[in-house]
Parts: sequence; structure tokens; C-alpha cells
Amino acid sequence: MAHTDGDRRPKYQRIADSLREAIQSGEYGPGDRLPGENDLMATYGVARMTARQALSVLRDEGVAEARKGAGVFVRAFRPLRRRGIQRLAEQQWGNGRSIWSTDLENRMLEVDQLTVSEESAPNRVGAVLDLAGEETVCVRRRRFVLDGKPVLLATSYLPTSLVAGSAITQEDTGQGGTYTRLAELGYKPAHFREEIRSRMPSKDEATQLSMSAGTPVILICRTAFTDEGRPVEVNEMTLDAASYILEYDFDA
Amino acid sequence: MAHTDGDRRPKYQRIADSLREAIQSGEYGPGDRLPGENDLMATYGVARMTARQALSVLRDEGVAEARKGAGVFVRAFRPLRRRGIQRLAEQQWGNGRSIWSTDLENRMLEVDQLTVSEESAPNRVGAVLDLAGEETVCVRRRRFVLDGKPVLLATSYLPTSLVAGSAITQEDTGQGGTYTRLAELGYKPAHFREEIRSRMPSKDEATQLSMSAGTPVILICRTAFTDEGRPVEVNEMTLDAASYILEYDFDA
Repeated sequence: MAHTDGDRRPKYQRIADSLREAIQSGEYGPGDRLPGENDLMATYGVARMTARQALSVLRDEGVAEARKGAGVFVRAFRPLRRRGIQRLAEQQWGNGRSIWSTDLENRMLEVDQLTVSEESAPNRVGAVLDLAGEETVCVRRRRFVLDGKPVLLATSYLPTSLVAGSAITQEDTGQGGTYTRLAELGYKPAHFREEIRSRMPSKDEATQLSMSAGTPVILICRTAFTDEGRPVEVNEMTLDAASYILEYDFDA
Repeated sequence: MAHTDGDRRPKYQRIADSLREAIQSGEYGPGDRLPGENDLMATYGVARMTARQALSVLRDEGVAEARKGAGVFVRAFRPLRRRGIQRLAEQQWGNGRSIWSTDLENRMLEVDQLTVSEESAPNRVGAVLDLAGEETVCVRRRRFVLDGKPVLLATSYLPTSLVAGSAITQEDTGQGGTYTRLAELGYKPAHFREEIRSRMPSKDEATQLSMSAGTPVILICRTAFTDEGRPVEVNEMTLDAASYILEYDFDA
């Protein structure tokens, strides 16, 4: 980032900033080798320790990665773009497309693990779904893999009283998926709430998503409501933050 | 979380899960002391190491925090709820309210640092704002503090050619803020794009936001467009993930 005002940050930060800017502008692309310590010492007239600190800033941020004996390289960040609002628009799932297909842009997002079961609801889910006393939920747990790397865990909860006997309780929900089946049952999703948080993964999540160290997860809790405001699904998603950009486009 | 199917996870994970569930259900509130190693050993019939591991899972997740000599406590997570779509609705900023006011819910979010300057645009911003050759931007850098703790860094970029001479170039933008001024200048924001990522903070960000270890930042890049689709502002925000829930509500 260029600064025309005074810049009081330490030298290593400014060197890191100018390398980061060069990466963001495309001067160094994913997988490219960055200037090494010797190069930085010569270019900026700094000590080895300063050059090393500059590179370690970019490593700590996940922008660059060291490869033993070979140098420091721009980390490949080729995230999925998840468009929160268009992807749920009715014209998409309404004519039988998966709600995930707009994320793909020619890249294959595949379910590699899927379980469906009937369970008692976690308290937080029961509260959102407004379940009566002992009412159970249909739980669909899926793991999504991109280019062989797991990127997303998604667990959907739907009231058993709504979906019992439908394809939603089967592994294959059929053409159009869960939302099309809900519409057929008279519970067409009309409104959505997405709540987003981020934190470090639990060990279990890090294992399931094969995550690199120093990478957080993004949590999305999506609730689907019918036109009358009845909650019909809670979907708790855990995303590898290194694999995703979320996008929401909307009008004033 | 209750499991009626088989659970093959290690014992310490299951103990951590049931403590987490008790926290989420409100059985243990923020600041409450959790059962100690001795309690867990007695309750679950496990070894000290297993009890310790269970508690360390919750600490690693940021759900609990150890206090020296006093035990392990539920971490106070009292996040701001940032409603992405309602908060930008015209009826809000249109009658002079700050776009931040819906976030507050009786809590004071205050700007404690503010600089305004004219600078050359970072390449990524220049590309989004579609700037001509050497065109500069008005840069507004703000830090927001909640209950004395910094939670948000926001840097807005606006083309100098649009805003020169207006209150947008002053520290105090006046009633209704930047968006009301843009409207007066004939560049009323009508569409918004918000792009969201998460990563670990840089050292500089961690310092500016007084962040705890093991806490990521959420990055939001918001672009404001006029009705004709002209980009008029890029706002790069860095949020302490432990302080925020983002919410987007929308129709199918």
C-alpha cells in the first residue's frame, strides 16, 4: 500500500507490506517464489534479521509458505466464492439445480461423506426450530471435498414431524434436493437468515477438514423459514477459511 | 450434542462436547467456573490426563479460559451482531442515522482513532473503483472501540474526483455521515457487495485490536455502487472475530 503521509511502522512491516502489495497486484502469482533474505537485504539495505522478519510476517498471515531449502513462495489461495444471496434465489433451486452449483464455477465440489439419522436435537437447534418437547430431528451430515481437499462440513436439522417419510430422510434427496422436497411438502423456504462467526477449529474439525496450522474456520448457521415465518431447517456449516470467500450482494 | 448413533470419538472429545453443550444451553453462563479435573474424573470415571485434555479442547476453541490457580471459566462471548442488510437499508442512513447504530443495541461503539488523508490508491482498490491513471483517493481510517476494547478497523477509500471539497474529506462528515454526503453529491449508494474472509491477524492487526492469542480476524470488503453501477466507495474492515456475529437476512 502506498503511503504519502508519514509511515512510522518498523522497516520489516513496510517490506512485508510492499511484498504483500506485489502479491495482491499479481506481480507474484500463487506458487511463485518470493525474493529471499539476500535479495531483500540488497534491495532495501536492511540486516538479515529484518529481511527474515518481513518474510515471517507473510508466513504468519498465511500469504506465503516456506519450502525447506527452496525459499518462500506465494501460497496458492484459490478460494471458492460462495454467493449467499443469489445462490438461494428461487429460480435456482426452483428448477432442480443444487444450491451449491453456483459456487462451483467449473470446479467440482463433491460430497464424500454423508449420513442421515433421526436424533434428539441439540438444545440450541431445538430452540431455533421451536420443537415441541420430545420432537426429534432428521439430521443430514455431509462433508464436501474440492479437488480432493475437504473444505466444508454441513449438518442440517429438520423437524421429523415435517419430513418423515419424504426423500429428505434418504441419502439421495432427489432432483432439486432438500428445498424442492420441502416445497412439495408445503414448507417452501422463503426467507433465510445466515449468521457468521469465525474461530480456530477444534482438533476434530481440523482433522475432518485436513486444515493447515494457523487457519481458522468460518461458521455459518443458516435458518430457512417458510413464507409464514415457520423455521423449517437449521444448517450448521463449518468452512475451511483458507478455501472460501463469502459474498453478499444487496440493495440499499 | 446427543448422539443416538455410535460415537467413536475419544473420551476427552465426548466430555468436551457435553461441557460445550452445557455452555450453549446456558447451564454454565459467561464467567462461570467449569467443573475442574477432579470433578470430571469423578463424574466420567476417567484419568486426570483425559479430564485435562477435555478442558484444553475448550480452551483451544476459545470457549473457556484458564485463570491461574482458580480453574477454568466460560469465556465471556458477548459479541456485537452486525446485520449486513438491514443496517444499510436506505430508511436508516436516509434520515441521518449512522449505519453503525443498529449494531449497538444499547452498547456504545465509539471511534477512538480517525485519520483522513489523500493518497494514491492501493492497486486492488484502484481496480475496484475503476480509477483513471494517477487519480488519488480520500482515505478514512477509523478504529472502533466497544466497552474500551478495540473491535474493528475500517479503512474507506473514495475517489478524490468525487468527494473533493465535501465534508467526506473532513474528520466530521456531518449528520448522516459519508453516505448522506455521497447522496448530496449525486452519488447515492444503491447497491452493496460485501466479501468476507477470515484469517489469523498480522502482528500489527493483533496489536491494534488488542487481540487474545488464538483468535482470528474477519475481513469484510464492502463496495458501494450507485444506481448506475458506478463504484463510489471501498471499505476494508478488519474485525476481531471474538467480538462479532455477522447476520444476513434475505428472501429466496
